[in-house]
Amino acid sequence: MKRESHETQDGAPHHVSHCRVTYRMTDQMAVVYYSNYFEFFEIARTDLLRATGGTYRQMEAEGFYLPVVHAACDYFLPARYDDLLAVQIWVTRLSRVRIDFSYVVTRKGESEILCRGVTRHAFTGSDGKLKRLETAWMGKLEKLISHP
Amino acid sequence: MKRESHETQDGAPHHVSHCRVTYRMTDQMAVVYYSNYFEFFEIARTDLLRATGGTYRQMEAEGFYLPVVHAACDYFLPARYDDLLAVQIWVTRLSRVRIDFSYVVTRKGESEILCRGVTRHAFTGSDGKLKRLETAWMGKLEKLISHP
Amino acid sequence: MKRESHETQDGAPHHVSHCRVTYRMTDQMAVVYYSNYFEFFEIARTDLLRATGGTYRQMEAEGFYLPVVHAACDYFLPARYDDLLAVQIWVTRLSRVRIDFSYVVTRKGESEILCRGVTRHAFTGSDGKLKRLETAWMGKLEKLISHP
Amino acid sequence: MKRESHETQDGAPHHVSHCRVTYRMTDQMAVVYYSNYFEFFEIARTDLLRATGGTYRQMEAEGFYLPVVHAACDYFLPARYDDLLAVQIWVTRLSRVRIDFSYVVTRKGESEILCRGVTRHAFTGSDGKLKRLETAWMGKLEKLISHP
Repeated sequence: MKRESHETQDGAPHHVSHCRVTYRMTDQMAVVYYSNYFEFFEIARTDLLRATGGTYRQMEAEGFYLPVVHAACDYFLPARYDDLLAVQIWVTRLSRVRIDFSYVVTRKGESEILCRGVTRHAFTGSDGKLKRLETAWMGKLEKLISHP
Repeated sequence: MKRESHETQDGAPHHVSHCRVTYRMTDQMAVVYYSNYFEFFEIARTDLLRATGGTYRQMEAEGFYLPVVHAACDYFLPARYDDLLAVQIWVTRLSRVRIDFSYVVTRKGESEILCRGVTRHAFTGSDGKLKRLETAWMGKLEKLISHP
Repeated sequence: MKRESHETQDGAPHHVSHCRVTYRMTDQMAVVYYSNYFEFFEIARTDLLRATGGTYRQMEAEGFYLPVVHAACDYFLPARYDDLLAVQIWVTRLSRVRIDFSYVVTRKGESEILCRGVTRHAFTGSDGKLKRLETAWMGKLEKLISHP
Repeated sequence: MKRESHETQDGAPHHVSHCRVTYRMTDQMAVVYYSNYFEFFEIARTDLLRATGGTYRQMEAEGFYLPVVHAACDYFLPARYDDLLAVQIWVTRLSRVRIDFSYVVTRKGESEILCRGVTRHAFTGSDGKLKRLETAWMGKLEKLISHP
């Protein structure tokens, strides 16, 4: 799962993670089962956070968790077994208590969009209660804000 | 996975499927990983279709497929290992070429809502192309229309 | 996921859990993907422990964990979408530090064996280190020993 | 998921696939749930077949399928969230009607073994019946035979 960084036209970064479709992810329609895209989104989030110089693992070690409070996906075309997918990700909104991500999935090197998704996350402590994100992480995440 | 049918206040049926949370579905936050709810939704859909006297397996055998074109979920409270969940499902909209379902997840016997979701499906043939649903199935599905 | 208890010929109990195959579990060969059987085995283990009057959730709350140290499965015939499977389970060996389970999967009401599996588990504390199981639980588990 | 080829001491190739542990794969023990390793094994198989100059996708397109008839894994140490795993794979036995693979999983760059597994596959047609592998593929696969 490689990550690449690109500049968008307005100079803000977006990121791309690459995910290979495994047999496990397919269903008897011979396409990727719909819930699996949410794992692709997770891979893209993890890679994006790594691009800040921190990691989500480290964020949890420091007592900050990002549970999903909303997730959605629109499916346009199916991905198939062994496809190498490109999952683009953007931070579209950020506050001290929440962060929104947008995702676009294509096959690598192709422009046809297979699906588009969003996830919204709260910042919480290990007890699941809202916890305002500390300044250092805010600074890192603010640099990721962009728009698909 | 047992199914129950109830009458809503306006007389239209809604259905409940029961799903036990397995260890596989939990993550290191000790809650159900977010994508797994979409499998619970699938279980509820399958059970609901079975309540028509047909089954989704039979629908596919007759050449009709219901790929997901949109899915979304709002997460309010986490489900945990070994919880017995009650997944309520309604058909909220139906046409010859698409069907919308709504879902509400609670613990069995409790009223606190853990999450709410929706899925939209197209009717297609095995080739993935839109295919207008035949009359007999329309009649069966129309009886399921209700509102959460 | 219903559980039933039966007497075997030698009087020792074995148990059956029922699992419905979801679309998520199928792959593009239109059969259940091989790793999913290990989740069926987990369901059967959880149900079996519940039959002791305790639960695995409770066992963890008391500081005992059962990580898998060995798992194997022989696949004879495929399970398919919407099949209602019967997963029989036996405790085949038990000591203070480990427990072995055996599993046989058929379709409910049929005798043809789809697959056979085994899992071996250590008893550990939350730190992952071996921890001898306390007497009360030993007593409960000893009653489950049988042979497929 | 990158693949690397190495020469073993006896000159036969073995291969390494790299898999990043996602949050989805963890369970509430904060380790990778046991069935997920079988998906890592699948990734390694797919990568290894790609190293022959063919692909499993292509093999299926030519009418050859490799259903799993046996799978086993011994678990020594847990993998954790965000670990980058190295999955080594070997073909240990090959005939016209079956192929055996062995796997060893470590963290990338480390020698400590997390788990060891094996899978055995039959060659079948799309009907699930045994089908002797054709000569061209046999030639490709024979070059992969090695021993862990």
